[in-house]
Amino acid sequence: MLTCTGFAAASATTPLAPFTFNRRDVGADDVQIEILYCGVCHSDLHFARNEWHYTVYPAVPGHEIVGRVTSVGAGVSKYKVGDHVGVGCLVDSCGTCPSCAEGLEQYCDTGAVGTYGGTEPVIGGPTHGGYSSSIVVDQSFVLRMPEGMDLASSAPLLCAGITLYSPLRHWGAGPGKKVGIIGLGGLGHMGVKLSHAMGAQTVLFTTSPGKVDDGKRLGAEEVVISKDAAQMSAHTESFDLIIDTVSASHDLTPYFNLLKREGTMVQVGAPEHPLPIAVFPLIMKRRNFAGSMIGGIPETQEMLDFCAAHGITADVEIIPIQKINEAYERMLQSDVKYRFSIDMASLKA
Amino acid sequence: MLTCTGFAAASATTPLAPFTFNRRDVGADDVQIEILYCGVCHSDLHFARNEWHYTVYPAVPGHEIVGRVTSVGAGVSKYKVGDHVGVGCLVDSCGTCPSCAEGLEQYCDTGAVGTYGGTEPVIGGPTHGGYSSSIVVDQSFVLRMPEGMDLASSAPLLCAGITLYSPLRHWGAGPGKKVGIIGLGGLGHMGVKLSHAMGAQTVLFTTSPGKVDDGKRLGAEEVVISKDAAQMSAHTESFDLIIDTVSASHDLTPYFNLLKREGTMVQVGAPEHPLPIAVFPLIMKRRNFAGSMIGGIPETQEMLDFCAAHGITADVEIIPIQKINEAYERMLQSDVKYRFSIDMASLKA
Repeated sequence: MLTCTGFAAASATTPLAPFTFNRRDVGADDVQIEILYCGVCHSDLHFARNEWHYTVYPAVPGHEIVGRVTSVGAGVSKYKVGDHVGVGCLVDSCGTCPSCAEGLEQYCDTGAVGTYGGTEPVIGGPTHGGYSSSIVVDQSFVLRMPEGMDLASSAPLLCAGITLYSPLRHWGAGPGKKVGIIGLGGLGHMGVKLSHAMGAQTVLFTTSPGKVDDGKRLGAEEVVISKDAAQMSAHTESFDLIIDTVSASHDLTPYFNLLKREGTMVQVGAPEHPLPIAVFPLIMKRRNFAGSMIGGIPETQEMLDFCAAHGITADVEIIPIQKINEAYERMLQSDVKYRFSIDMASLKA
Repeated sequence: MLTCTGFAAASATTPLAPFTFNRRDVGADDVQIEILYCGVCHSDLHFARNEWHYTVYPAVPGHEIVGRVTSVGAGVSKYKVGDHVGVGCLVDSCGTCPSCAEGLEQYCDTGAVGTYGGTEPVIGGPTHGGYSSSIVVDQSFVLRMPEGMDLASSAPLLCAGITLYSPLRHWGAGPGKKVGIIGLGGLGHMGVKLSHAMGAQTVLFTTSPGKVDDGKRLGAEEVVISKDAAQMSAHTESFDLIIDTVSASHDLTPYFNLLKREGTMVQVGAPEHPLPIAVFPLIMKRRNFAGSMIGGIPETQEMLDFCAAHGITADVEIIPIQKINEAYERMLQSDVKYRFSIDMASLKA
């Protein structure tokens, strides 16, 4: 087995700290990757603190991974040593169920293997994420980073980017469509950039007047202060699609009324408790409320290529791994524009 | 103006009682209909008792109307005196908005005119429904009852029937699809019959073991007692579509887990309060939660023709209008299999 260094939480209440652990040897279909950057997703914090009640400790978060191939197995044809590659939220799946056959591994019938918090398919035990020096991943779950893409700021595309790209594509965002994005954080700022790049009329909803300028800079034609009823009602029944990136519980009824007939509200932030949904606004206009989770491997590659073609990456603040605990606290205060990206060279410091 | 007799509620707490009122004269495009039967919808009770907070008194309910044409305007080409016709929940709409242009008058941008509780477009005041001797309706909102169809038992098709037919069609019920219907009442029993006739594998969910045999008689391949977790979990991730006809607030989470990836739950019962919706089951399988409201005029005609072709009507208990208050109380106890149909000849008694 390979020795790997990283940062782990030893318990739900312990700050992340240095941790040495094993990765499996490079199998025939595996790619070994030296991790260069890893984005910091809100899920990492939920996982480190066991807020989703499935964490096994020590726990190494991180599923927005960009790195360089350092070794490949005998059967690997897609990648060679030196390639810049990415790994997102998934590192394995059954490969045979209808969802996997359609390239929708995120919806695998038997459950895809998460980059962290899953079960390591070869050596057992929990999978460990990207807050680490290297990772070994089946080539089928490795993405190619497009030529010339900035690596630090593209790491968040692997989760935040695809989480927005997939529902935008699935529900037809594009020219002639009006798309709303609720919330300007790590997810929301990707939504605004991607929706705009797809050619949709893009509106950002935020509670913060201080985010109006930034929303427009990122590509929103309009920014609506969602607490302002007059601003909201000006958009009544005009949206084809609204994507809610906010995971805090909030009232969606005012947003449903902004959807056209048969319009769709998609939840990608994951509130801990059930959301109270008023049914009349759904019934009166045959509207939909749906969920969406990241994206499959083919669509993730498509998203990376789309981002490269449109010059899109995340807005990031680069930090050393030693600042991860402080970054978590700042993330809880929404004090980051709009994603932390860990420079993994700092692990050797 | 024409004089009409009927039964009306004089206030939210008054039993329905005889009432005489005016209908507009028969205009160029109007059809005058002698009402033969009127189904009793749960909405009638909500309306009579002002539970939806919009009732103007005296209030004449009834929007499952079947009758005989007694007079037509000079411009009427679709119907002639003696034809058997139906009128459902709508008697007018703007006619020009995108929804009306698509034959989806129920979603009219400016609000379709309800058969009761709307604003009479010619003489003003509230529209009065089908618990009455006759009605005058623009030919565009009149349906043709297929030859040979039983009139008493087809009246409920005009609301209960189309309320289920429309979502079944919209979300693709048919051969190779598995459809669930929650609740065996006026709406649910139509859902079971229609889904089965469309060729879908049809499963009824009920809390009442006493309804198993009836569910199967009506066309369900299987009846699941929804309080039985083992029975429920046997259907995990197997449904393409589930239609919830229950308007009492209840937990939908167990049902969401029965939907396939991208499956849809459609709410047609209208709970008074917001429903708590757990978001994880939506996100994990890209599932949908939607609403649907009756159907447009072209689809209502299509539904009537479909029912005639498949020998479908509602299961009704025929009552005289003098029993309407008792019928309301029995409806609240679910003590009807499965719809009351008022024989309007009783008005003359």
